[in-house]
Amino acid sequence: MYNLPVMVNISRPTAAVIGATGYTGQELVRLLGAHPRLRLGFATSESETGQRVPGAALRYVDVAAVPLDAVDVVFTCLPHGEAETWSVRARQAGARVVDLSSDLRAGAHGAVYGVPELWRDCIREQPLVANPGCYPTGILLSLAPLLRAGQVDTNQPIMIDAASGVTGAGRGAKRDLLFGEVAEDYRAYGVGNAHRHVPEIASGLARIVAGAAPPFVFTPHLLPVRRGILETMYIPVEAGFDAGAARQILSEAYAAEPYVEVFDEGLPALRDAVGRNVVCVGFADVAGVGGRTLLCVAAFDNLLKGAAGQALQNANLMLGLPETDGIPA
Amino acid sequence: MYNLPVMVNISRPTAAVIGATGYTGQELVRLLGAHPRLRLGFATSESETGQRVPGAALRYVDVAAVPLDAVDVVFTCLPHGEAETWSVRARQAGARVVDLSSDLRAGAHGAVYGVPELWRDCIREQPLVANPGCYPTGILLSLAPLLRAGQVDTNQPIMIDAASGVTGAGRGAKRDLLFGEVAEDYRAYGVGNAHRHVPEIASGLARIVAGAAPPFVFTPHLLPVRRGILETMYIPVEAGFDAGAARQILSEAYAAEPYVEVFDEGLPALRDAVGRNVVCVGFADVAGVGGRTLLCVAAFDNLLKGAAGQALQNANLMLGLPETDGIPA
Amino acid sequence: MYNLPVMVNISRPTAAVIGATGYTGQELVRLLGAHPRLRLGFATSESETGQRVPGAALRYVDVAAVPLDAVDVVFTCLPHGEAETWSVRARQAGARVVDLSSDLRAGAHGAVYGVPELWRDCIREQPLVANPGCYPTGILLSLAPLLRAGQVDTNQPIMIDAASGVTGAGRGAKRDLLFGEVAEDYRAYGVGNAHRHVPEIASGLARIVAGAAPPFVFTPHLLPVRRGILETMYIPVEAGFDAGAARQILSEAYAAEPYVEVFDEGLPALRDAVGRNVVCVGFADVAGVGGRTLLCVAAFDNLLKGAAGQALQNANLMLGLPETDGIPA
Amino acid sequence: MYNLPVMVNISRPTAAVIGATGYTGQELVRLLGAHPRLRLGFATSESETGQRVPGAALRYVDVAAVPLDAVDVVFTCLPHGEAETWSVRARQAGARVVDLSSDLRAGAHGAVYGVPELWRDCIREQPLVANPGCYPTGILLSLAPLLRAGQVDTNQPIMIDAASGVTGAGRGAKRDLLFGEVAEDYRAYGVGNAHRHVPEIASGLARIVAGAAPPFVFTPHLLPVRRGILETMYIPVEAGFDAGAARQILSEAYAAEPYVEVFDEGLPALRDAVGRNVVCVGFADVAGVGGRTLLCVAAFDNLLKGAAGQALQNANLMLGLPETDGIPA
Repeated sequence: MYNLPVMVNISRPTAAVIGATGYTGQELVRLLGAHPRLRLGFATSESETGQRVPGAALRYVDVAAVPLDAVDVVFTCLPHGEAETWSVRARQAGARVVDLSSDLRAGAHGAVYGVPELWRDCIREQPLVANPGCYPTGILLSLAPLLRAGQVDTNQPIMIDAASGVTGAGRGAKRDLLFGEVAEDYRAYGVGNAHRHVPEIASGLARIVAGAAPPFVFTPHLLPVRRGILETMYIPVEAGFDAGAARQILSEAYAAEPYVEVFDEGLPALRDAVGRNVVCVGFADVAGVGGRTLLCVAAFDNLLKGAAGQALQNANLMLGLPETDGIPA
Repeated sequence: MYNLPVMVNISRPTAAVIGATGYTGQELVRLLGAHPRLRLGFATSESETGQRVPGAALRYVDVAAVPLDAVDVVFTCLPHGEAETWSVRARQAGARVVDLSSDLRAGAHGAVYGVPELWRDCIREQPLVANPGCYPTGILLSLAPLLRAGQVDTNQPIMIDAASGVTGAGRGAKRDLLFGEVAEDYRAYGVGNAHRHVPEIASGLARIVAGAAPPFVFTPHLLPVRRGILETMYIPVEAGFDAGAARQILSEAYAAEPYVEVFDEGLPALRDAVGRNVVCVGFADVAGVGGRTLLCVAAFDNLLKGAAGQALQNANLMLGLPETDGIPA
Repeated sequence: MYNLPVMVNISRPTAAVIGATGYTGQELVRLLGAHPRLRLGFATSESETGQRVPGAALRYVDVAAVPLDAVDVVFTCLPHGEAETWSVRARQAGARVVDLSSDLRAGAHGAVYGVPELWRDCIREQPLVANPGCYPTGILLSLAPLLRAGQVDTNQPIMIDAASGVTGAGRGAKRDLLFGEVAEDYRAYGVGNAHRHVPEIASGLARIVAGAAPPFVFTPHLLPVRRGILETMYIPVEAGFDAGAARQILSEAYAAEPYVEVFDEGLPALRDAVGRNVVCVGFADVAGVGGRTLLCVAAFDNLLKGAAGQALQNANLMLGLPETDGIPA
Repeated sequence: MYNLPVMVNISRPTAAVIGATGYTGQELVRLLGAHPRLRLGFATSESETGQRVPGAALRYVDVAAVPLDAVDVVFTCLPHGEAETWSVRARQAGARVVDLSSDLRAGAHGAVYGVPELWRDCIREQPLVANPGCYPTGILLSLAPLLRAGQVDTNQPIMIDAASGVTGAGRGAKRDLLFGEVAEDYRAYGVGNAHRHVPEIASGLARIVAGAAPPFVFTPHLLPVRRGILETMYIPVEAGFDAGAARQILSEAYAAEPYVEVFDEGLPALRDAVGRNVVCVGFADVAGVGGRTLLCVAAFDNLLKGAAGQALQNANLMLGLPETDGIPA
């Protein structure tokens, strides 16, 4: 890649990151810097306009200064509620768009929901993809093969107890996210299925089973770490089904997938996944009543497989590039 | 208290803390330093023999040097497996004993299991009490009133997802507990009901219902904080029962208890409880299927209400002192 | 105190905390809750007006709603720049005022600078006291006895390398103080004597020597902990002077002081001081050139001896109460 | 590299990492996994023999099982005191050796001290190199150009106030390094020039000036972060010399160096350097007396440029490979 003649660069597709100083934006800029076929052309920032983009021969520009019609793919990394406008403008200007906010995940403007491992063919060469939320990514990838195999007892709710590092809440200045508040604390939030991700999870599960979503309870917690999500799931399963069988189903389902890692034994910890574009999944048997409960733990980096890494997978698919380009395994 | 004539001190009961440099031992030493009626006479340490006990006019002694027959109450704060021997010797020498390890919790040597709020009358004036484990304390106090009220659907398991700060694992030098391992990590451990506390929880629940323990799944996690436990419980309840009703039952059950705090609204966070001898309990409604699932969160300080604070409650009861002596609310 | 007849309460002086939801305000509220002779009458908050004050039978009120003329002592805990107005109003209404901001530390409005251990007689029964900054408190208390004893070589600068926990920067929502920014980081800031505390330190040192302040370099750093300040000072001293002599001078100077702890050996760590209203000071010899360099380390809790605890010492002096009232040693 | 025929691999030099489960060993294994010309052949571990090496198609072996005569380069990552034996054996078997402990840094067995940027020509094609300590690396690289330019006033000591993350102390199970001890703490240790690195710094400085080392005081502190070192240096300089001049001298000295980054403005923070094989250096002017004091801050990752990254630079030089092979900038 370093020895290609300059002219070749002219034809490299150009990417723009809108909202490049947030946590997911920073991560995308970093990944794009090492992408063999995409070129970071523009990185926007309201607060740091004019300053240098770390690791890139660029300066941050105001979003209004990006020539959207000269960009091949736009990554919209703005806060929820602010992203839709720019995703629509970028589309109108002809750019492909990966929207990393929650704004388009219900399908607004024809956006396709992008979990490559589940619905790759629907993403390929699409112009507008809604990148999944961090929590849903781990949940859907863990449950899909079991649901498709008909092994989940859908008469009882799946309990999903999740914990996320603070970068999952964005880089906006909020008192609740100050070091002085978060360190040495741990708390549930958005309980009673009040979290923004609940309809997204429900809709993803419904699509997986091609019917009514199985019941679930989702309780996110705020963890005093910078990055990483751990999801501990209590799955009611049919009698006779156990952790070994679950492992086998997932191992087969994801045999060709570089970004899902099914543990042969033991359960993944945050540390197994942070810094990597991967969802690690493990299973354990626990005692239950009237059938069985299966314990499933998924660990992943909320900024990589939970955001920027998956966004790049989607962009690669949309542009017809190799899906793994620029995404270290 | 500081101006009392010396002779009065002669009649103040004397306490010994065996294993006074572990985390729970340190906490007991600190609490005893402000106890109006108990006097810390001896604090033992293998590693720091001869050094000064912080905040006390004492030096650490070897455990063999403690005149057990001159001590009124012994707190055994040794690691699991090492405590039983010394608790038995102290009893033989005539001292009352609160054993903070798990060694006697199944009732060995006639030890009484000591959760004051549940079984106060069985503890009062007893000579030998097994102090409850940290995790069980929060679980039993949260569930007891609901179970006694017959509101828990015992046909399905209660899911107990718990997270503990690292001091809960003791102060022994273990690689897994190094800062370099724990910081920025989060993981489940002792899953599949493999944790030492599972039989203790089961036995406590059985005693509460005076019958077979309701089924439950217990998954502890290691949290990168120094102290505090948060337990997120998914309780299957009878149709029509909700968070408001649960709050009312617990509020009534614990109306006279200074060390259980039922939240009127919202759920407790670690920070609400750390540094205090209290279990904070809150409830929230969540959607379920075939009846309802109730979300219950308990937060408490593993070293206070989960260990040293509760041990002092027990000791006060055993010695006929006011239960709250030396325990700030 | 709990059994006194109601009428006695009428004569207990009433305190108001303006800005009671910031970190120092919270700490003052907590301390006042256990003060034997002062009564917390009002706690103000812009963001939480109407909500309950934790641990007090009060609700937060808007600052404009405080009847300043009915208050005996006002603690102004507002951000720098916002405090002066309210301190002046409170004075005009006749209340005594302890201003915890930096607004009055240069003596505006006749404010007296309040380090009780150094200038107790100037504080006693004064109406308006500027509470010292956190960094200066440890520096002035450590250096004063050595400077007064003429043992510091003032031809070379004292190097002061300081590190503070994040609560020292207040509870305002700033991006730089987010957990995601501070955790796993450490950095110098306000260098080149650019920090707000530099003139305050210089003025304090000048007052101590009753002449020109000795030269010094002050470099604060932001530490990924919630509370606590550690100051490592490199003091040029006269030949023949060493750590032992320094210890003796400070021990004698502070023999009667409950809130300064001179270490007999070793150097204090953050943990020795956090949670206590004390400055811990230790000394060590290090090799130097042309005379000697003395290493001095001071550790203290920025919210207690560095703010709220010292403010209460000052208030007690101003009101003619015992200086240690409400301040656990 | 992935498409080369198998035969080519035969001629790739083989590396062994002795002590591969410590923090520096882990980092070396990770780096070697992506090295284009070196092949990790053996990774030893006492505690994890037989288990899989993460990210490598290898299992840990006992150190005695490594065929040292079949290895081209051995990285000795054992604790201080345990490394020398194995470094000597590896040399006797004919392997090149980079010893990452402090055992050989004084030159035992003819070991060359390896800071590539300062003494590259002495390292090239050498058989035995002592990899520098983490603290000395940043100090020597920061000071060398200034000392060589004769701009340091060597009549007064340089004050070096340093702070290191806990992985710098190794992965052995020690109580002082438990999360419960380190979190929310900060402390000086090894003061009074008692630290193992002091003679190493002195010897390095002496070599730089080809004469007597300039006087210095070194005070390390333990920081509650996992990785990274920040060194705040107070450098007495000749009159008229300032931060701008220092920047220029270092910029010129390191113009061709990929692993030293001189800041144009501002001072580096831990976060600028962690995860990268680089020493970031910045300067600021501060007021002084009788000449000037220059403030210099160096930040680097103790496990990369402070250990494994620099070891790989050395190994590349020793083997005649491009120095940057396998070391991302």
